[in-house]
Amino acid sequence: MYDESLIELFKKTFPFWDKMSETDRETFMRSSHRVKFEKGRNIHDGNECTGVILVKSGSLRLYLLSEEGKEITLYRIFPGEMCILSASCVLNTITFDVFVDSEEDSECVVVGGCAYEDLSRRLPEAKIFALEAAVSSFSDVMWVMQQILFMSMDKRLAIFLLDEASKIGSDQIKLTHEQIAKYMGSAREVVSRMLKYFVSEGMISSSRSDGIRILDKKRLRALTL
Amino acid sequence: MYDESLIELFKKTFPFWDKMSETDRETFMRSSHRVKFEKGRNIHDGNECTGVILVKSGSLRLYLLSEEGKEITLYRIFPGEMCILSASCVLNTITFDVFVDSEEDSECVVVGGCAYEDLSRRLPEAKIFALEAAVSSFSDVMWVMQQILFMSMDKRLAIFLLDEASKIGSDQIKLTHEQIAKYMGSAREVVSRMLKYFVSEGMISSSRSDGIRILDKKRLRALTL
Repeated sequence: MYDESLIELFKKTFPFWDKMSETDRETFMRSSHRVKFEKGRNIHDGNECTGVILVKSGSLRLYLLSEEGKEITLYRIFPGEMCILSASCVLNTITFDVFVDSEEDSECVVVGGCAYEDLSRRLPEAKIFALEAAVSSFSDVMWVMQQILFMSMDKRLAIFLLDEASKIGSDQIKLTHEQIAKYMGSAREVVSRMLKYFVSEGMISSSRSDGIRILDKKRLRALTL
Repeated sequence: MYDESLIELFKKTFPFWDKMSETDRETFMRSSHRVKFEKGRNIHDGNECTGVILVKSGSLRLYLLSEEGKEITLYRIFPGEMCILSASCVLNTITFDVFVDSEEDSECVVVGGCAYEDLSRRLPEAKIFALEAAVSSFSDVMWVMQQILFMSMDKRLAIFLLDEASKIGSDQIKLTHEQIAKYMGSAREVVSRMLKYFVSEGMISSSRSDGIRILDKKRLRALTL
């Protein structure tokens, strides 16, 4: 009757599992669903409480989205990891919107936000676990922000090109300098100057018709370290 | 024997005060200090656990600092508010460094981080209170980050100039375009172009010898809305 592998997953993920009553566990299980998300699908758009997402295979991408459609990737969530920022009803002090997409075909287990919230009102350990996970995400996000705000332009641009190539699954990036500047929150002049340098170093080629093509991924990657 | 006004402050600040034992309250009080910080003084530099800072008068500024000395102001803390990110030992999942300066002469009460941490191990309410305060700061920080990453340049520059003027207490800002670009994480060309526009609109004047002078604060402020 019980889904044993789900129980195993919950035991491993939630350190408070042993402190839950039998009834709470049943409610928790009933509110949980196995879901398959195809590559590129939007899973959470900041509005509703999607719930706590546990990744079993594939990967998710968490990002901010501006009104003009500009995205900033905050971090990725891999198998064995959990997304708590999608459970906005659990973390009622969070007032900003994040978006979550599946970056590959992904298998997840989604624990209903209401069930978790209900539990965390009775079990402080569950509340503390969710809050600590959020604070830990906070640290990850701050790291990204510091990279963006403080990092040198060559590094940022290298990371952008590699991310973009991996996102579209091709080394040919058909974006104009203007578009790249817009995505990176920088100026076209600055982006063009740096791309020219990458071309002169043989790391990429750039042409009006083909856009940018990555030629030396290894050296580009070295710039990101 | 007891400092009644301190008890009043704690009662108002910490919703778990009534649930604390008499011994815990005494330890809490003993670990707390009234401190006066003069304007511009660094209070917390990210390394040690300074403790939970309650602001009674004045204001504090919380910011990130890059290795090159570039600062990003995250938010300010005003009378009646609390700084929890300076209590790193309470929030052990936080792995980034923030800096806190007093922006004016400020009177604060600092609750020792160890005493708080010790209490929060026994009283889940204290732990939850600290974590929720941190998550709430997270929201504030994300707002700032979204402004920086997504906001149009005119708005960002207007905010920077007004912030700077208020920080130095003068409408004359003696920074070069290059320095402003560095502080804002932007390119000099972009900053110069926008300053030229502000000059043409009569909002500021700009000269090599005097730097930038704010002429029309009201219109500059309108840009920030």
